[in-house]
Amino acid sequence: MSACLCLVLLLFTSFAGATYPPGGFHHFSSLRQNKKPSKSKSESPFETRYFPQNLDHFSFRPESYKVFHQKYLINSRFWRKGGPIFVYTGNEGDIDWFASNTGFMSDIAPKFQALLVFIEHRFYGESTPFGKKPHKSAETLGYLNSQQALADYAILIRSLKQNLSSEASPVVVFGGSYGGMLAAWFRLKYPHVAIGALASSAPILHFDNIVPLTGFYDTISQDFKDASVNCFNVIKRSWEELDAVSNTKHGLPELSKKFRTCKALHSQYSARDWLMSAFVYTAMVNYATAANFMAPLPGYPVEQMCKIIDGFPRGSSNLDRAFAAASLYYNYSGLEKCFELEHPTDDHGLDGWGWQACTEMVMPMSCSNQSMFPPFENDYEAFKEQCFGSYGVKPRPHWITTEFGGKRIETVLKRFGSNIIFSNGMQDPWSRGGVLKNISSSIIALVTKKGAHHSDLRAATKGDPEWLKEQRRQEVAIIEKWISDYHRDLKEE
Amino acid sequence: MSACLCLVLLLFTSFAGATYPPGGFHHFSSLRQNKKPSKSKSESPFETRYFPQNLDHFSFRPESYKVFHQKYLINSRFWRKGGPIFVYTGNEGDIDWFASNTGFMSDIAPKFQALLVFIEHRFYGESTPFGKKPHKSAETLGYLNSQQALADYAILIRSLKQNLSSEASPVVVFGGSYGGMLAAWFRLKYPHVAIGALASSAPILHFDNIVPLTGFYDTISQDFKDASVNCFNVIKRSWEELDAVSNTKHGLPELSKKFRTCKALHSQYSARDWLMSAFVYTAMVNYATAANFMAPLPGYPVEQMCKIIDGFPRGSSNLDRAFAAASLYYNYSGLEKCFELEHPTDDHGLDGWGWQACTEMVMPMSCSNQSMFPPFENDYEAFKEQCFGSYGVKPRPHWITTEFGGKRIETVLKRFGSNIIFSNGMQDPWSRGGVLKNISSSIIALVTKKGAHHSDLRAATKGDPEWLKEQRRQEVAIIEKWISDYHRDLKEE
Repeated sequence: MSACLCLVLLLFTSFAGATYPPGGFHHFSSLRQNKKPSKSKSESPFETRYFPQNLDHFSFRPESYKVFHQKYLINSRFWRKGGPIFVYTGNEGDIDWFASNTGFMSDIAPKFQALLVFIEHRFYGESTPFGKKPHKSAETLGYLNSQQALADYAILIRSLKQNLSSEASPVVVFGGSYGGMLAAWFRLKYPHVAIGALASSAPILHFDNIVPLTGFYDTISQDFKDASVNCFNVIKRSWEELDAVSNTKHGLPELSKKFRTCKALHSQYSARDWLMSAFVYTAMVNYATAANFMAPLPGYPVEQMCKIIDGFPRGSSNLDRAFAAASLYYNYSGLEKCFELEHPTDDHGLDGWGWQACTEMVMPMSCSNQSMFPPFENDYEAFKEQCFGSYGVKPRPHWITTEFGGKRIETVLKRFGSNIIFSNGMQDPWSRGGVLKNISSSIIALVTKKGAHHSDLRAATKGDPEWLKEQRRQEVAIIEKWISDYHRDLKEE
Repeated sequence: MSACLCLVLLLFTSFAGATYPPGGFHHFSSLRQNKKPSKSKSESPFETRYFPQNLDHFSFRPESYKVFHQKYLINSRFWRKGGPIFVYTGNEGDIDWFASNTGFMSDIAPKFQALLVFIEHRFYGESTPFGKKPHKSAETLGYLNSQQALADYAILIRSLKQNLSSEASPVVVFGGSYGGMLAAWFRLKYPHVAIGALASSAPILHFDNIVPLTGFYDTISQDFKDASVNCFNVIKRSWEELDAVSNTKHGLPELSKKFRTCKALHSQYSARDWLMSAFVYTAMVNYATAANFMAPLPGYPVEQMCKIIDGFPRGSSNLDRAFAAASLYYNYSGLEKCFELEHPTDDHGLDGWGWQACTEMVMPMSCSNQSMFPPFENDYEAFKEQCFGSYGVKPRPHWITTEFGGKRIETVLKRFGSNIIFSNGMQDPWSRGGVLKNISSSIIALVTKKGAHHSDLRAATKGDPEWLKEQRRQEVAIIEKWISDYHRDLKEE
């Protein structure tokens, strides 16, 4: 599987169990250290550049004018001057990862003779105003948020077009996951900069109780149930066994042995989080191009896991089966000698998404006992305390819906705005927070029954199923229309 | 004339001659001290309230969470629960002034059974996060800007609707001048909070060289020429005479005597600025309801001034005539014994609009020799230096067009957004920076050949001409349609 993607997903879901006691809101971040992408710069079709940005676009204090250098990648191989500019609105991570996992843009660039630009999100990758390790967290991380990021993009794009002497070039923004939210919001807030947005797997409604809180875990559970009812049941029963083992006298050492941990476990919850993460991420990458994932086995990732679970002899331990399935995810190469289940906690202060989740990206979740996971309620008070403990900051849980909307979005955008594609695959747990119905003739939902987290943004492969090809064809056709409308309007000016 | 209005206009134009040497960017603020409104609280139909706001909505530093109390006025006399909420997006001044000068909203409230809310802009009136006299200017004034103000409005409105248990009430925003810019931008940025905006005399295109820089002074000149060509010529020739007098040996004492100043003049430029201001403001208030203005004389304000100028015997001094005309403006009551032409410079640090003009509201202007004013070029470098000298801040001259757009606005909004009325009277010097053509079926320009600065927002009077009545009728009809569309959409949800 793609190592890069994995990390991206991790960051994006690091808050998924924010209020899930007692793992805390970082219980999905255990893989972060392992999956560093191997950068082979020589192969990259992109040129790396840096753009000076002001620290704060929305205030004019002396510190607001502090400059940091925002990284962006550019590929002009297919571009003809005056042609469109396709911009990826970077999300929570190194921009190189997004560039190498958004092959769709490179695939369609020749057809559109488009310039490709991938902009890194402030406070991630190399675009860090206070260096890699900002010490006084709230004082420095305070400038990390989505509105500042959108303003960064607007300023950079404007400057770039000016420098290219191509100010009439239409700009289309693309993004997946949090990057998709940014793309959609960018079109809504900066229609004068971007003529349209492709927002893939963008859960912009996953705030402020707009959608049911159980959707995320219910979807994953359904993915596994669809693959095999037995598989679903095995996983659902494994938590009890995990508790039972842990609560014995020598439970933790036994668990450490069973889970082949590199170091002795301090808590059973690490094991639980580690298992849950494997199922969550596997569902998220359960897209059609299985060739990119656990290559040695046939079938899609969730199916592969369930084959392992179902392949155990009758009467086997549910926990052993769950562990074997998770091992497929963590050790698909078969080369790992042991697993790192626990990570040092002082890492938290450096986690940009953890910060964002504790300030504006407050996406409540709960887990019902209908799912295959241990049930838990959304506990905002506990979450708030954790945030204050980790970062010294108070969340603003209603801010995103105040700033960007979301409530009754169909009615609001029915008569406002245009040119947004919300694409979602219904196997993606994040799809339940997405826009799943057409809002107007040009604010479109492209929904596929299959498909996982931003499957459509990946590079086309030979094994792609027809529904995925069709989804991409529709996206291309819609973007073509935006551009031709734009040029017609230009002529009429 | 209305004392309140006068102050509002002054603030809004305090930057008009920003680069006009050597008066500096405060050469239009000379009236500020004189025209304090007489508040008779007992008569006010409004209840005064205060809402706790965070200092900074776009960052999450510890200081961002500092709370200040934002003043707002509310009148629920005409409201039925569930009915519309009409919000005035306050501009640069005490909100009471805007409430008493926006009679249109009160006039139409009974018909709509609307709640009236006037929200004060942060850093003006009583809504001052750092008290009346913030000492370290850039450090504290840094939080004074339009985006923070819009976010204040969004948060307050959302909370108010919740507290009223009337969350389905449609909100329409109203504003004149800078308040009109805020109303239009609010609809564009917060369509989920306001279903429409009436932006009266909102020069949202007066940035970044979108419109010709000479429009402001040319319009005033044309207003005077339309009243009387002789009047125009007299004023145009008066500047030379002013220079001639000033440059004699005892020029300044002579000028002080001629201008009946309370204190001896230090500079001839004070006299020039004082004269210019009189003509600028008179043109801006040259609206139809002459009864509100220089009451003792018949006719509209510019006509009244020109009658004075034209009434002098042939061969009279042009400067004397110009002074007499200006005196009508400054002393329409006839009670002033002397005039205050110069004000202490330490006042600058307290001037919110001066700050805004030096940061984001950079509205370049120049004055051609076709106008009746002394010609001057727009000198951005000098302006920048003045700003740095006064506030220690660097302007961001392209920020407003990056954040809110403006360039090629017809093309951008042709396929984006809805429900905005841009109303303008072409006698208003600010009209040249306004939206003067329909953009789409619901982004409408209501332009009248006559009419001055936000004439339509004033209370109806018996003397209102037919074109003004008709403009207001159209506004009411359009707002009715927004509300009925909204209710139809609600039913279809």
